[in-house]
Amino acid sequence: MGRVYNLCAGPATLPVEVLEQARDQLLDYEGSGMSIMESSHRGKEFSAVHEEAISNLRELLGVPDEYAVLFMQGGASTQFALVPMNLLPSGATADYTDSGAWAAKAIKEARTLGQVHIAADCGTDVPARVPTQEELDVSPGAAYLHITSNETISGAQWKAFPVGEAPLVADMSSDILSRPIDVGQFGLIYAGLQKNLGPSGAAVVIVRRDLADRAPDSLPTMFRYATHIEKNSLFNTPPCFAIYILMLVTRWLKKEGIDVIYRRNIEKAARLYEAIDATSFYMGTARADCRSDMNVTWRLASAELEAKFVEEAAAAGFKGLKGHRSVGGIRASIYNAFPPEGVDELVRFMQDFESRNG
Amino acid sequence: MGRVYNLCAGPATLPVEVLEQARDQLLDYEGSGMSIMESSHRGKEFSAVHEEAISNLRELLGVPDEYAVLFMQGGASTQFALVPMNLLPSGATADYTDSGAWAAKAIKEARTLGQVHIAADCGTDVPARVPTQEELDVSPGAAYLHITSNETISGAQWKAFPVGEAPLVADMSSDILSRPIDVGQFGLIYAGLQKNLGPSGAAVVIVRRDLADRAPDSLPTMFRYATHIEKNSLFNTPPCFAIYILMLVTRWLKKEGIDVIYRRNIEKAARLYEAIDATSFYMGTARADCRSDMNVTWRLASAELEAKFVEEAAAAGFKGLKGHRSVGGIRASIYNAFPPEGVDELVRFMQDFESRNG
Repeated sequence: MGRVYNLCAGPATLPVEVLEQARDQLLDYEGSGMSIMESSHRGKEFSAVHEEAISNLRELLGVPDEYAVLFMQGGASTQFALVPMNLLPSGATADYTDSGAWAAKAIKEARTLGQVHIAADCGTDVPARVPTQEELDVSPGAAYLHITSNETISGAQWKAFPVGEAPLVADMSSDILSRPIDVGQFGLIYAGLQKNLGPSGAAVVIVRRDLADRAPDSLPTMFRYATHIEKNSLFNTPPCFAIYILMLVTRWLKKEGIDVIYRRNIEKAARLYEAIDATSFYMGTARADCRSDMNVTWRLASAELEAKFVEEAAAAGFKGLKGHRSVGGIRASIYNAFPPEGVDELVRFMQDFESRNG
Repeated sequence: MGRVYNLCAGPATLPVEVLEQARDQLLDYEGSGMSIMESSHRGKEFSAVHEEAISNLRELLGVPDEYAVLFMQGGASTQFALVPMNLLPSGATADYTDSGAWAAKAIKEARTLGQVHIAADCGTDVPARVPTQEELDVSPGAAYLHITSNETISGAQWKAFPVGEAPLVADMSSDILSRPIDVGQFGLIYAGLQKNLGPSGAAVVIVRRDLADRAPDSLPTMFRYATHIEKNSLFNTPPCFAIYILMLVTRWLKKEGIDVIYRRNIEKAARLYEAIDATSFYMGTARADCRSDMNVTWRLASAELEAKFVEEAAAAGFKGLKGHRSVGGIRASIYNAFPPEGVDELVRFMQDFESRNG
């Protein structure tokens, strides 16, 4: 078996020891005589998995009691609709910050469902960046303020979160659990699993319970946060295997320690940004003060040279470095599970590639 | 490793050879150096999995070209809302048949979203049954007629599907691919994966393309069938691992042959019903002409005796026989992947239990 260095933006690399445990238990979960995939979602085996997944998240993120931790389906893209459907009453306004492609998708969906005010727009700025607290133009009495904590495509990340009157709603799909946060600063956090939490096919939602009461009665049962709070995410059959892998990933995170992971993430990213800044051969595309620790983006002098870089990197065992199809360039996604030695080897490859093509 | 006989209603038993393949590929999918869980949903490895999953379903069910085959998230419970949101225009009426607990859930959701007419109601009949063609009282110009092809809880199954003017919409969660069907009889079929298709966390939707055009413009992007038709279920990151397992399950089904599976299902169910009918110790709870081939339900003389039966069966290696918490009794879910020898052994256990307790 030859594992490669997987720099995909998501689905993304998982801890090897998590995959090994999943493999070893795949036909018989802890002596139950069946796979966790085959176990009843109301049986004792899955119930224990489900409870540990929730309690691990609560512990790692320090989730206060007045917040519920939910597992839902449909990814962040479904949350783009569910947030305004639940939290934006008719006649009220929701504030959104536009920081790039993912923020724009959240805004587009909210606009079909209610009144949206753009509190800051730097979505197409070059270099890529997120807004500053100072430039936020918020609405009086806004239902909430929405941010995208890390723009997976452009590689721009909020380093400090905005402060204001309205509940803060954050799409944290690509940087949840990469750093300690104060959940109490937020009204609602959502994140697809497939970057830092597990495989694709589920989303984590952390919601202050009182906000769920805003939903209108006409909202279908499955689309109400209140349903999933009341039923502990077991109103219907949940995505059991995805939750099981998340449980193993969060167990691994607890063993490593969130502070250790955070320092490691900063160091991994710093080594890559140093390599980029050390030469004009590589050009970083996010502004220095909001460079993402998760998705490091840069360009070379031409699209041809970028294609050559991606191709030779893949041949050398670095997969998934091609930038998003909408923007081109190079993107190295170095989530929690991406090993530091992989970054070191990638830096050596970059230096070698430059020496041959510079 | 001691595998048990898993009679759970869903998540349910999977073919052992599917689990073995998933285990063997879990850290390195076909030499790619990564798990299929870690692979980009737009990369060549997952694209091939996705395409094969669709083409296997098309071949096994004989899906005509004018129908799309979609993978969506949120299970059948989400489809309970999406069907009327997409297919029931304002002012129109949808016909529903009430055949039990699952039909009732679909009806409840539709009623919050539009005008519903109950074309037949036998949802609480004892013994459990589904409506007959003759008793259907359909609305003129109904937007569609909804049925639940197999009631997982009561164990009643449609043996022939109703014929009429309105497009037929069927929740086939618990009997899809258990028998050959004529997809051309239907406007839309939906099914959660976790009985006959794979693990929980995704649903298959087979929809006649023209019906998707009925959706109002105000419907959020993720809730429109048209979005998923246009994007081939890749508008956002799909539940990749669930689709991968479905691909392996449908590959196994193609090897076995749907006609062989169908005959095997009939024989498995017949052996259990014969054992029930052979004695007054066991009492079948579905009417003979609509007894399910997937979920065989029966009672014993008292709840205490039923509890003893479930407990001793579990100790003997038959797991998941407890009837749904809403109705009690015994339920043996014998989906495609449940082996015939398991049914034979269960029948011997039943005879032995009766001899000790009759």
